[in-house]
Amino acid sequence: MNQIAYLDNAATTKLDPKVLDAMIPYLGEFYGNPSSTYSLGRQSRLAIESSRKQIAELLGVKPTTIYFTSGGTESNNTAISSAVKQLGCTHIITSPIEHHAVLHTVEHYSKDGKVSLSFVKLNASGEVDLFDLESQLADKTKAGHKCFVSLMHANNEIGVLLDIEAVGAISRRYGAIFHSDCVQTIGHYPINLSEAGVHFASASGHKFHGPKGTGILYVSEGTNFSPLIHGGSQERKKRAGTENVAGIIGFTHALALSMDNLPHDRSYISSLNKRMRMGLTSISQNITFNTDEKWLYTVLSVNFPAGSNTDLMLALMDRIGIFASGGSACSSGDDGGSHVLTALNNVHSGATIRFSFSKMTTVEDIDFAVESVNTILEKTGRPISA
Amino acid sequence: MNQIAYLDNAATTKLDPKVLDAMIPYLGEFYGNPSSTYSLGRQSRLAIESSRKQIAELLGVKPTTIYFTSGGTESNNTAISSAVKQLGCTHIITSPIEHHAVLHTVEHYSKDGKVSLSFVKLNASGEVDLFDLESQLADKTKAGHKCFVSLMHANNEIGVLLDIEAVGAISRRYGAIFHSDCVQTIGHYPINLSEAGVHFASASGHKFHGPKGTGILYVSEGTNFSPLIHGGSQERKKRAGTENVAGIIGFTHALALSMDNLPHDRSYISSLNKRMRMGLTSISQNITFNTDEKWLYTVLSVNFPAGSNTDLMLALMDRIGIFASGGSACSSGDDGGSHVLTALNNVHSGATIRFSFSKMTTVEDIDFAVESVNTILEKTGRPISA
Repeated sequence: MNQIAYLDNAATTKLDPKVLDAMIPYLGEFYGNPSSTYSLGRQSRLAIESSRKQIAELLGVKPTTIYFTSGGTESNNTAISSAVKQLGCTHIITSPIEHHAVLHTVEHYSKDGKVSLSFVKLNASGEVDLFDLESQLADKTKAGHKCFVSLMHANNEIGVLLDIEAVGAISRRYGAIFHSDCVQTIGHYPINLSEAGVHFASASGHKFHGPKGTGILYVSEGTNFSPLIHGGSQERKKRAGTENVAGIIGFTHALALSMDNLPHDRSYISSLNKRMRMGLTSISQNITFNTDEKWLYTVLSVNFPAGSNTDLMLALMDRIGIFASGGSACSSGDDGGSHVLTALNNVHSGATIRFSFSKMTTVEDIDFAVESVNTILEKTGRPISA
Repeated sequence: MNQIAYLDNAATTKLDPKVLDAMIPYLGEFYGNPSSTYSLGRQSRLAIESSRKQIAELLGVKPTTIYFTSGGTESNNTAISSAVKQLGCTHIITSPIEHHAVLHTVEHYSKDGKVSLSFVKLNASGEVDLFDLESQLADKTKAGHKCFVSLMHANNEIGVLLDIEAVGAISRRYGAIFHSDCVQTIGHYPINLSEAGVHFASASGHKFHGPKGTGILYVSEGTNFSPLIHGGSQERKKRAGTENVAGIIGFTHALALSMDNLPHDRSYISSLNKRMRMGLTSISQNITFNTDEKWLYTVLSVNFPAGSNTDLMLALMDRIGIFASGGSACSSGDDGGSHVLTALNNVHSGATIRFSFSKMTTVEDIDFAVESVNTILEKTGRPISA
């Protein structure tokens, strides 16, 4: 069996060959250091600034609000570190189902006791309780705190979406700084960051068929922030280090391709998601979903019947070339299971597997996966029928 | 005139086509997230760990001491931040001719008054005064400080070399933590980091024909350090963020190529450096050098006769395809001239230009540059003869 079904696109996506084509000249003849003043250097500088402009247009913001980083994690760290060190935030409100790039970072900055930390209530399915958010903001602001709100636009494990505009509006009412980890949504939704009301937003290239090791941080106009990485004058003295020019070109090309084809790709990927739901439902009504149909269309988090085991299922799927994950890839090195499902008290007695899709996923991949899951459940003798 | 002479290899080098060939599979079919547990992910993980092992062997250390970063600047920032926040260092000794990635970072961390900062004496040509270093370490240690020494292995502008073993030994005597920015030397000298006596060392891939946006931080065994970038469990929880797999492969391949061909390339590049010295000396005995012949062989910092102007010369050279720099590329965005030459009181009345060479530089490049410099000096009517 040589067929492979890559169904872990929320972990990473395959680089689009068109993106690689765009990068190649910058991995070859256009090698100048963008800080150099001669033509070879200016060529690299121009490529970076054109990229910044193009990204800004795609996200509805000014080019001066876009900063290139080494990825979504660095972007999140920069935003959080700035809020605490530069912007005077003394209380952080986040959610227990944030990506570790946010969760571990806010924990780090709150460890020394200078910044306090609280978690917003979520409903049973993982949606942010906006009343609780507002109530916490009101209390903390009244107590003299300047608040920092960090809430992800879409959860990477279960796909729950945030009403980013609503959170932006609420945060504004209390003079809070609002950061959103948009790693799962930028490149997958039409997003106008200036309308979203965020002060900081993070994106990662490899989540939409761009290169790994590339990301951006959006910082709204007038929001002061301090670099996480000090040194040379790159990125208007906000992110030192020789720019990864080819990576920046790749990020930009990937985002442009994603946005150009968004209506088509979104509709196609949504249809794959639906096909998988239907296929799994037809196997057993004891198979349920943690991902609402209105949520992130690239993700489908599935609960398998009691008695099934996540690790065993993943291993058997791996053996026949079906690649999916238990929680997120980034948690795979950690002990224990998914912090997201744990936070939602959604630790049921069967396997939970996240399938995630991209424009490169095929109907055959879905059918192969559904069929194989059925076989695996039957072979491992799990009680699959109601 | 289509000939181009790229003589700014200390700013960045062209990616070796063999390195690109090694990277391509990881920009294509091997796209798995290294944190994923299925075969496509494990393949990426294996590639990273094999790279780490290979780098460690090349640098005479254990694989567990090598951490992948987004570049030399991030590596320097991580070392400095760790020394201050994790290792309890309360006094930093550095030099005024460090790269901005060190200088601006130690300035940042000493701003809040928790860490004091002093500069080691240099002799007129830029060499570290080891007696002064020891004397400062003795005084500060006696005063109850734990010291952090950050001194670069080779200066990027003038090429002065540090006796890294001597500084390692002195630092050890005073229980100080020693970091060396080895961005200009790793890939260009045979270096055994475990013998060098450093606790931290930084390297950057694009300085030896590897990709931009890649670097390593060496952390000696038993030296505790804290991440600069928090989040997922990557790099044994010391550097979060999905790994730039292709970049890591590229860094490793470039370092292996450099070390394999080091005797040949070093001898060849040294001969180019000598040829340029001789050529320039034959133009005028009023042309002098800031780079001693025993220093970094890839660099030649040249003082042109009084009356010549750095910016004008660089512009005229640029116009005919000769690419060199005034100070370092990373300073080009800054105001003012070279902080290195300023610190050495070496601001003379003529132009100062840094030429820097690589294995890709040709004899023709050198001859073309020397001849063109001669023409430029003559045309601009500068007094070139004694």
